[in-house]
Amino acid sequence: VVELYYWPEIQGRGELVRLALEDAGTPYVDVARGRGGVEKMLALMEGAAPGLAPFAPPFIRDGSRIVAQTALVLDYLAAPKGADARRQALQIQLTLADFIVEIHDTHHPIAGSLYYEDQRDEARRRAPIFLEERMPRFLGWLERTLARGDGEHVVAGVESYADLSTFQVLAGLGYAFPSAFERTASDIPLLMELHDRVAARPRIAAYLASPRRIRFNRMGIFRHYPELDLTV
Amino acid sequence: VVELYYWPEIQGRGELVRLALEDAGTPYVDVARGRGGVEKMLALMEGAAPGLAPFAPPFIRDGSRIVAQTALVLDYLAAPKGADARRQALQIQLTLADFIVEIHDTHHPIAGSLYYEDQRDEARRRAPIFLEERMPRFLGWLERTLARGDGEHVVAGVESYADLSTFQVLAGLGYAFPSAFERTASDIPLLMELHDRVAARPRIAAYLASPRRIRFNRMGIFRHYPELDLTV
Repeated sequence: VVELYYWPEIQGRGELVRLALEDAGTPYVDVARGRGGVEKMLALMEGAAPGLAPFAPPFIRDGSRIVAQTALVLDYLAAPKGADARRQALQIQLTLADFIVEIHDTHHPIAGSLYYEDQRDEARRRAPIFLEERMPRFLGWLERTLARGDGEHVVAGVESYADLSTFQVLAGLGYAFPSAFERTASDIPLLMELHDRVAARPRIAAYLASPRRIRFNRMGIFRHYPELDLTV
Repeated sequence: VVELYYWPEIQGRGELVRLALEDAGTPYVDVARGRGGVEKMLALMEGAAPGLAPFAPPFIRDGSRIVAQTALVLDYLAAPKGADARRQALQIQLTLADFIVEIHDTHHPIAGSLYYEDQRDEARRRAPIFLEERMPRFLGWLERTLARGDGEHVVAGVESYADLSTFQVLAGLGYAFPSAFERTASDIPLLMELHDRVAARPRIAAYLASPRRIRFNRMGIFRHYPELDLTV
């Protein structure tokens, strides 16, 4: 059984791994959500097991093997077959990872160790530029990637974890920035269809309705602060 | 011959690819530094070639294959042999990539599209927290990774592109934050030795002394603004 290690109270980057595990029906234990799990996670980051220690969660343990870095975990668990498809999935996933850093930093432009309230002024400067410049740029690239491929999967012709992660980013943006995202939706019809198709996959639909799916909240990557959204 | 595409006036993330190509003695063309090269790069990002278009440079073209995302380019060009070593190199490289985003954002906490001078106040808040909290955390992890391995290579027992990228990050930090980095140096003896060992590799030494090595400057990731460094 695969062990997943991630902060227990947020979706965060761990959610990208959970979606892949759930969609594949892979049995896993979400270790840090169990008793003593956070301490176990921190111990592994401190080097409790031999070999390369993870810098940060999420990471997984599969037997004696520990793998960190979200995109690499996904590649390890669920790489599509074929060297080219595998590389394309990783390339897209790493671009999503870049996008996610920028999404996170809209509410934490100064430091992860400070509260939002202590960097709200800077956030109010960063967020609108992100929403006007960066969000359309990333979403436009993803939409064109679909349009140039098979229209349904970000890796043309292949179902992959990158579709699931794309779903998560779209869902998160819709939660965090409802007004700005609504304005963008008409420019990204293929992505909106992908979102709905992923949400309707039987195992994903069951997962999203289950208590295993942590709700969006104000501790995670995607946070809804009305003052950071664009006004209509 | 491999074609490398990257902005012509900075080291940036392209430098991580250049170091790997130079160290291996792989023939390559640094396309955007030649006549019309930037236009060619932008055209490929706009989708001039079939298949997945890069979101951003650096990317390479090897025959008809285009690969983007720095870590993935390095994996494509120079992955160490063996699935475990290959994964460890990528895990370390992706952690360096996270580090590099935070280094960059010390001088650009609000937006990449604004000049430093237009976000200097925010930079003066972000940089000291980075230098006090984040830089020691990343460097400490790298130092422990060496100490727990063979002491010389970040992937234990294996020479890899991740050593070269570690060198580049150390060199860049020493340039950008001489005072803060000096203060840290005594805590990272294995990393300092790695830096010197990489710099002395014959092909790397020749490259660093050549005009192919762009100097550190105030357009790249690593920038020296005295007001962002810690005072001694």
